[in-house]
Amino acid sequence: MSVIDEVVARTVTAAPRAEPDVRPSREPATARTPRLELSVGTAVSRYLDLASALHGTAIHYAVKANPHPVLLRALAQAGCHFDVASPAEVRAALAAGAPASHLVHSNPVARRDHLREAHDLGVRLFVLDSPGEVAKLADAAPGACVLVRIVTSGSGSDWPLSRKYGCSVEDAVALLLDAARLGLDPAGVSFHVGSQQRDPQAWGPPIRSAARVFGAVRAHGIRPWVLDLGGGFPAELEGGEVPSVSQFGAAIEAHLADAFGEDRPRTLVEPGRGIVGDAGTVVTSVVGVVDRGGVRWVFVDAGVFTGLVETLDEAIRYRLEVPGVGGTSGPCVLAGPTCDSADVLYETTPVSLPLSLAEGDELRIHAAGAYSTCYSTVGFNGFAPLPTVVTS
Amino acid sequence: MSVIDEVVARTVTAAPRAEPDVRPSREPATARTPRLELSVGTAVSRYLDLASALHGTAIHYAVKANPHPVLLRALAQAGCHFDVASPAEVRAALAAGAPASHLVHSNPVARRDHLREAHDLGVRLFVLDSPGEVAKLADAAPGACVLVRIVTSGSGSDWPLSRKYGCSVEDAVALLLDAARLGLDPAGVSFHVGSQQRDPQAWGPPIRSAARVFGAVRAHGIRPWVLDLGGGFPAELEGGEVPSVSQFGAAIEAHLADAFGEDRPRTLVEPGRGIVGDAGTVVTSVVGVVDRGGVRWVFVDAGVFTGLVETLDEAIRYRLEVPGVGGTSGPCVLAGPTCDSADVLYETTPVSLPLSLAEGDELRIHAAGAYSTCYSTVGFNGFAPLPTVVTS
Repeated sequence: MSVIDEVVARTVTAAPRAEPDVRPSREPATARTPRLELSVGTAVSRYLDLASALHGTAIHYAVKANPHPVLLRALAQAGCHFDVASPAEVRAALAAGAPASHLVHSNPVARRDHLREAHDLGVRLFVLDSPGEVAKLADAAPGACVLVRIVTSGSGSDWPLSRKYGCSVEDAVALLLDAARLGLDPAGVSFHVGSQQRDPQAWGPPIRSAARVFGAVRAHGIRPWVLDLGGGFPAELEGGEVPSVSQFGAAIEAHLADAFGEDRPRTLVEPGRGIVGDAGTVVTSVVGVVDRGGVRWVFVDAGVFTGLVETLDEAIRYRLEVPGVGGTSGPCVLAGPTCDSADVLYETTPVSLPLSLAEGDELRIHAAGAYSTCYSTVGFNGFAPLPTVVTS
Repeated sequence: MSVIDEVVARTVTAAPRAEPDVRPSREPATARTPRLELSVGTAVSRYLDLASALHGTAIHYAVKANPHPVLLRALAQAGCHFDVASPAEVRAALAAGAPASHLVHSNPVARRDHLREAHDLGVRLFVLDSPGEVAKLADAAPGACVLVRIVTSGSGSDWPLSRKYGCSVEDAVALLLDAARLGLDPAGVSFHVGSQQRDPQAWGPPIRSAARVFGAVRAHGIRPWVLDLGGGFPAELEGGEVPSVSQFGAAIEAHLADAFGEDRPRTLVEPGRGIVGDAGTVVTSVVGVVDRGGVRWVFVDAGVFTGLVETLDEAIRYRLEVPGVGGTSGPCVLAGPTCDSADVLYETTPVSLPLSLAEGDELRIHAAGAYSTCYSTVGFNGFAPLPTVVTS
């Protein structure tokens, strides 16, 4: 059974599951908590908005954000392409109906057998950022197209990326020349402006850097033809206004025109959260409310180990809603259900919740469609991975 | 299929699996990386050492640290009791052959249906720390025995616990009186000195606090009879000498004698890492070595999402070994295989590894038997959860 199959096996649909669940219950699966309610229609609509705002740019949905097969099929049918990083993700995209030519493999340092398998499955476009990987790719995927990832500052994003990936402009030029020497297609440049990026202007500096790489390799007679503008498009989390998709589109188009003029390459983007983030709501129930020396702790039945790991260091702040519970609100620490002391969602900056909130009340965690179900543990402490309920 | 069954289904044994795996390979499962090599004999031996050093104290292995069924069976056969926190963990301990009377349920804020199910399965001893939970337990598990968890400083531990659990001495007294009023057995006190605790004297202050609780409730005619000394016993990680099990035993015995004199309650401990930490080695292969502006990045095929989440914030530092690779060593950042920029193990304080380390070399991560397989994601980015290979 493949990894993606396992993710599928954990999905509940509107019909109750026939097989016994961890928690024997007479409630239908769709009413149990915790669960992710995933609106595939919302995700497809976000894809269409992005495709319209970035007319002429191919939209590659980042499968890692949420690999649910119903979502992938709907996106593929709507014309969406895919960003993949492992053989299991390649197979998931193919199973959803995408042709291999619609995939970009964007794991810059990958196992040789994984590269070979992706290539055998038909993938042709690969991202890398180091000399060792150019040689590895030439061996594992002869003739493949190479995008070299350049480093960015990540400024303006809620979750700036580490220095794990990306090389300098000078190194990118050398790598594309290397690629050509080794029989690969030196196709272009890739970058990523950081996750949950709120500033449309963040695309400006890396687009200009990419144009410098294009110019430098053209001087060697090489004609790169692709620019991968990465992901980072935000969901509607807490913490200030998010610009509209069309504002991102307009800013990116302006930067492309400015940097490349008439000689614009083919472009693609790799949104994950930007497509599926707002399509998902984690529905939890309150387990208990406890006073800890004057601090109010609210324990819910989803936590760090069951889908909400992005709350670590409180980098990502979800929008919360408690339907039907009113009255005065006050600051609360929000904690998960396992007996692990690390299973705390928001403590440094508490959340505001009604003081009348009590055991059994529902807490809805919005904009949680990305990096939730796929980040669940296999069942830490005996708590099942977050299941998905697909809505229209 | 229960959560624990799912963990079992992921286990590989010495024989290659018949069903197709994520990575088609002609290697036997025991030679593939990444994997956890789990020595059940080492874990049983650590249990026996603890039982000998803490003669008269019941050893309850914390199932959450590693719920592998072969491990649980071997520990149960050796006489070990268990610490559980959910119905799935109760069932796993029972399936391993432990009677329900050998279990302590130590999740202080739990779902009402979970408490009811644990009680229905025969569990009688429950930890809690708040008034709401006393009332909940009286409803869900009438007549159950109550341990009230008091807060500790966590000083001396590599991973001090958050303020998620534990009440004051005064509140503990009130909760035990409440419990008696609601028909529960006010059985005693529980505490936890923090994970990977290196200081045997850390048990002193909470043992003295517990004795104050015992004294105060005796004045109300209540005779508590159990003291749960928690876990925290360390594995042999990096970062300084770890005292021997007998040093911990001697210190704890001295503090108990000092605080309780002749009137000593029954005692229990809840070691997880202290039993299984040193029994496991994560075996990984180098995927690639990359120079990032003069900083050496080593990418391996296990990471934050495949079992090594305890490296987050670099709190836990595993001992590393590269068999058969010699020569000069130098500082390296250690990164995992997914394309997620958070999948970095050690960056702030790099690790020292041979400069000749190259793709395909094996890197062994020691003392990783606890909180590794169970912390794996369901398959983030298409990378399978860390499988276990049981050794003798």
